[in-house]
Amino acid sequence: VIIFFQIFSSVSLAQEQVTNSPEAVENPSLEDALNNLWVLVAGILVLMMQLGFAMLEAGFNAAKNTVNVLFKNFADVCLGILVYFGFGYALMYRPETSSELILFNISGVLGLSQPYLFLDELVPRQGAAHLSVYIDFFFQAAFAATAATICSGAVAGRIKPWAYLLLTFLLTGVVYPISGYWVWGGGWLSEWGFHDFAGSLVVHAVGGSAALAVVLILKPRIGKFSGQDELTSTEENQLFPHSLPLAGIGTFILWIGWYGFNAGSALGITGDISSPDTVGKIALNTTIAACSSSFTVIVYRWFKNKRRIDLSSVLNGILGGLVAITAPCDVMMPPQSLLVGIVAGFIIIFGVYSLYALKVDDAVGAIPVHCFCGIWGGVATGLLREDINLGTQVLGSSIIFAWSFFLVLGIFKWIHQTYGIRISKDEEKSGLDWQEHGEYTYLSLEKLEKEK
Amino acid sequence: VIIFFQIFSSVSLAQEQVTNSPEAVENPSLEDALNNLWVLVAGILVLMMQLGFAMLEAGFNAAKNTVNVLFKNFADVCLGILVYFGFGYALMYRPETSSELILFNISGVLGLSQPYLFLDELVPRQGAAHLSVYIDFFFQAAFAATAATICSGAVAGRIKPWAYLLLTFLLTGVVYPISGYWVWGGGWLSEWGFHDFAGSLVVHAVGGSAALAVVLILKPRIGKFSGQDELTSTEENQLFPHSLPLAGIGTFILWIGWYGFNAGSALGITGDISSPDTVGKIALNTTIAACSSSFTVIVYRWFKNKRRIDLSSVLNGILGGLVAITAPCDVMMPPQSLLVGIVAGFIIIFGVYSLYALKVDDAVGAIPVHCFCGIWGGVATGLLREDINLGTQVLGSSIIFAWSFFLVLGIFKWIHQTYGIRISKDEEKSGLDWQEHGEYTYLSLEKLEKEK
Amino acid sequence: VIIFFQIFSSVSLAQEQVTNSPEAVENPSLEDALNNLWVLVAGILVLMMQLGFAMLEAGFNAAKNTVNVLFKNFADVCLGILVYFGFGYALMYRPETSSELILFNISGVLGLSQPYLFLDELVPRQGAAHLSVYIDFFFQAAFAATAATICSGAVAGRIKPWAYLLLTFLLTGVVYPISGYWVWGGGWLSEWGFHDFAGSLVVHAVGGSAALAVVLILKPRIGKFSGQDELTSTEENQLFPHSLPLAGIGTFILWIGWYGFNAGSALGITGDISSPDTVGKIALNTTIAACSSSFTVIVYRWFKNKRRIDLSSVLNGILGGLVAITAPCDVMMPPQSLLVGIVAGFIIIFGVYSLYALKVDDAVGAIPVHCFCGIWGGVATGLLREDINLGTQVLGSSIIFAWSFFLVLGIFKWIHQTYGIRISKDEEKSGLDWQEHGEYTYLSLEKLEKEK
Repeated sequence: VIIFFQIFSSVSLAQEQVTNSPEAVENPSLEDALNNLWVLVAGILVLMMQLGFAMLEAGFNAAKNTVNVLFKNFADVCLGILVYFGFGYALMYRPETSSELILFNISGVLGLSQPYLFLDELVPRQGAAHLSVYIDFFFQAAFAATAATICSGAVAGRIKPWAYLLLTFLLTGVVYPISGYWVWGGGWLSEWGFHDFAGSLVVHAVGGSAALAVVLILKPRIGKFSGQDELTSTEENQLFPHSLPLAGIGTFILWIGWYGFNAGSALGITGDISSPDTVGKIALNTTIAACSSSFTVIVYRWFKNKRRIDLSSVLNGILGGLVAITAPCDVMMPPQSLLVGIVAGFIIIFGVYSLYALKVDDAVGAIPVHCFCGIWGGVATGLLREDINLGTQVLGSSIIFAWSFFLVLGIFKWIHQTYGIRISKDEEKSGLDWQEHGEYTYLSLEKLEKEK
Repeated sequence: VIIFFQIFSSVSLAQEQVTNSPEAVENPSLEDALNNLWVLVAGILVLMMQLGFAMLEAGFNAAKNTVNVLFKNFADVCLGILVYFGFGYALMYRPETSSELILFNISGVLGLSQPYLFLDELVPRQGAAHLSVYIDFFFQAAFAATAATICSGAVAGRIKPWAYLLLTFLLTGVVYPISGYWVWGGGWLSEWGFHDFAGSLVVHAVGGSAALAVVLILKPRIGKFSGQDELTSTEENQLFPHSLPLAGIGTFILWIGWYGFNAGSALGITGDISSPDTVGKIALNTTIAACSSSFTVIVYRWFKNKRRIDLSSVLNGILGGLVAITAPCDVMMPPQSLLVGIVAGFIIIFGVYSLYALKVDDAVGAIPVHCFCGIWGGVATGLLREDINLGTQVLGSSIIFAWSFFLVLGIFKWIHQTYGIRISKDEEKSGLDWQEHGEYTYLSLEKLEKEK
Repeated sequence: VIIFFQIFSSVSLAQEQVTNSPEAVENPSLEDALNNLWVLVAGILVLMMQLGFAMLEAGFNAAKNTVNVLFKNFADVCLGILVYFGFGYALMYRPETSSELILFNISGVLGLSQPYLFLDELVPRQGAAHLSVYIDFFFQAAFAATAATICSGAVAGRIKPWAYLLLTFLLTGVVYPISGYWVWGGGWLSEWGFHDFAGSLVVHAVGGSAALAVVLILKPRIGKFSGQDELTSTEENQLFPHSLPLAGIGTFILWIGWYGFNAGSALGITGDISSPDTVGKIALNTTIAACSSSFTVIVYRWFKNKRRIDLSSVLNGILGGLVAITAPCDVMMPPQSLLVGIVAGFIIIFGVYSLYALKVDDAVGAIPVHCFCGIWGGVATGLLREDINLGTQVLGSSIIFAWSFFLVLGIFKWIHQTYGIRISKDEEKSGLDWQEHGEYTYLSLEKLEKEK
């Protein structure tokens, strides 16, 4: 308690010094107030995507693990934002002017900006001098949390909660901000001319590749590809989605949030920064790719699957189109987005098949959606635009994949060998909810009535 | 694959030509940037209504049909937007200036604007020259998707999925854009002085009338009004809502989305286009009508139903008020909205009774909500405003109802007689989920535990 | 019916007189159009919080009472907005200029502004002259509805529906607008220098204190602390949450809505009113407090609870942090928000323990979240800011707590003794859904299959 009061008073003093600096910043132009408003609203939409991920993953997993899935999704956004607030943003961006504020700097590769540690000074960052640092941070932090939460679904049902939080820490504090700096913070990939407008690679492939790495370390859930003889039919069923309405809610919230993600990445809507046409084109491309990707899945299923169209594929089809259009959404014409989406639809279908054939157990399809379609987004940018170098796009996409995949693979392989990140067989069969959280997801009337 | 690459290259070339045109458009005034931002945000809210419809309909239907309900709601928005992108928008709106770009034109009745086919040229449309074409299209496409999705709930549990997608195609590609042109695109009903600000008729009655037509063709679900003796008590129960929390989520998301629908239809918030007072009045009228309509239902139920107030009616009460205020939300004073809502509440109550008495099986109450309250909205505009002609409102409302109802009735009667749009008796009893989609909505612990 | 038509025509006339006044208001500056847009969007976010409350409370309560919980949440927002529209807003705010329009006025304590009864005149209010009265009212009404709905969860499972609606009436028509006037409408607490930026006290503690009062009158649910021997194990289980996914949806929607609540309370984003930095700082502080509060709960549980972290506490942790930062969100620096959140996390943990020890039955944790953390928010403002008087904050917070608690306690004690506000024992055991609403929350396949 005494320590607390000491912190209190020191923080109170700190505040006195700091509150002077906001006054120094002049009120921005009306133009930039408008740009700030759009980025703030977009940031709120991006943060809402966390609810989308939580519901999608909850719906696609077993009821016995749903408290755990929800816990991971709430804990990762809280931890991820705190880490990015502590030092992630400082790793990713550099101040506009005062280079003396950079604590260390291997030019283009790695650095740390002192004013952004716990955001204690209001110095605009490079590339967003027109935005309030607070609003820019809020928007960027929501992106960092997205990169982290992508892994949650793929590894569901078998990872220890502390290991998952460690993964969140690694992604929001190391992997994402460093490769983010390379592409968006002025680092070497941006100097090469690599184009990833809103993060098909920087966010989605980073998250999806990390998911692939951890899934390979964890190995499949019991009974997914083998050992089904040791499962009861109940336990076997628990490898399937337990609530498609939740998955539907999740997918649609993600779709809506994506307008903040893509169109918000214009960092404004007027003046020198952007224009309504630019922002509108991004929103339209995002929409068209989502629609054409999911409709491709529908048509494919109709002809190949005896006219039975499963909803799960349609939902992942929407998400695949959204991920793919994220990199080129600012440079495509709407009919091109149609094409980007169609290909994404096929990638979802064959990506899911391939992972199944390779016996890689991704519980929600996060790897085809975020990793494969993310890479497709990067490649499509070079393929469809003559002024963007296809080679750079392929190489840059590969580098970001490799960076996230091998770094996470190396670190988590070591952690797994040392401490073990997979739960016990018994816990896996009975579900994480009771063992790790002491709660059940549902307490339904039916269950209760049976006990009478 | 070869065809694909040909499309790729042709699209790539197309893009080169086209990207020049955006440069030609000058950066709009700050005023219009603000107007564009509001319409973009409103469009996002309107698109979110699709999630509202999906959840409302899922909750109000049986669990055995919920995957199908969700599929229809996701597929219709994807297909609907693609169709409207292909040629719907081109049917509905005319370019501001260059009349040589109109491919054909029966003045005031029907036409097709070349620049809006797949949106390949940036020519502002009549009535929205201040908006980015992309943003205007995004907003309008969300409206088209709404008109289509209204039908989904009413016809639930018995229509073949391909027939439903055909209905979506018909609504977003023909019915909605043509009558939309009459009222909002400068066609003959707008020249008459018919007032339907945000679409009580143009969107809601169009969707609701089409739903009525298809419901009459489909006939009621087995056991709804007769033949209950061939049903088990289980099958009988499946005619009732399976999850009221989902219905509650759906209703509230629709309410929230309606602020985009109504207040966004001002197409701006400042300058010559609109003002904060106008937009604020619309938002307030929308709110008051929703509240007074649902509270009317509550009071009525309290006195007539032995103090038992069912939630389903309250939810439909909210929606009825929202539909009714949609046409006159820009011209009412707030106390008038109170009145519009109160009447809407009674329409919901007696509309549901009437359909039941007439043995019309509307699985979610879409017809009273969207068709009856939509017409009331059109009539109320003439009744409460002295400067708007009541006769025009009554006639215009009737014409839009008749246009959608008889066109859909005619086409679908023919399709039904030729191919059959209703699923088999067995499939209806066991539910569409497994037969059409190969998935179950829920895989609950209880079910699984029973199998042990 | 005749009465109806008379009302119709009188309203029609009224409208003729009134519609003149909007014309008198000049189109505001572009700056203020932008401010209005932000407040409108924020109001939509705040209204969305109603869905958050509904889902949180539904998830945290038994399935047998969920229709009732949803009904209360929908009915209170409808009734609450109508009451606030009728006279609540008129009690809370005074017109900017024309003091002759105030019907009565005990200076600083109580008054009534004629133009705001049913909003029939467009006179700007003190402190928001730059806003459209409609938009300001919309934003304020969403706040009033929030204050009311806070009680819903705490009293769940045992209050008669009419008594709950009476409580809504009391809160939105009397308690909230009067103390709101003291702090935000220019009343005596604001003159004292009491700082409550967005309503830790004015909204949350008012709602939470009322909840505490009614919970004390109602007494605990059967079997919560005693009398468990008369319960079957089924009935005992029904004291626990029935659906954590719904609780998760609710919490996250509340979090998202809070950006409207806090950042919208700046009543603008540019010009003399506010700035992007101010609004951004508020959004950031809100985020950081939510994250640090919930992470505090996670860490505490991990060490104290044998590494089992229950989701329910994490969710309430998020909400506690949000409530606490609401009062000082405009004057804290981000690292201070971290501290406000950490303390809020502990308050949640020990608040829940304390209520349990004192045998106070709060079905969802609304009292620790809204009352205790609300008061902490008021106190923290004085503790961490040297320029805000700690004494004033403590005293002001106590006064608001006392005002709401004792007023509601007195009135409801009398009502309870006269009419009885608690449902019968039988109804409590079987649930309110069937008795009060004639509906069941779920009609699941499992239940139905059993009946075969």
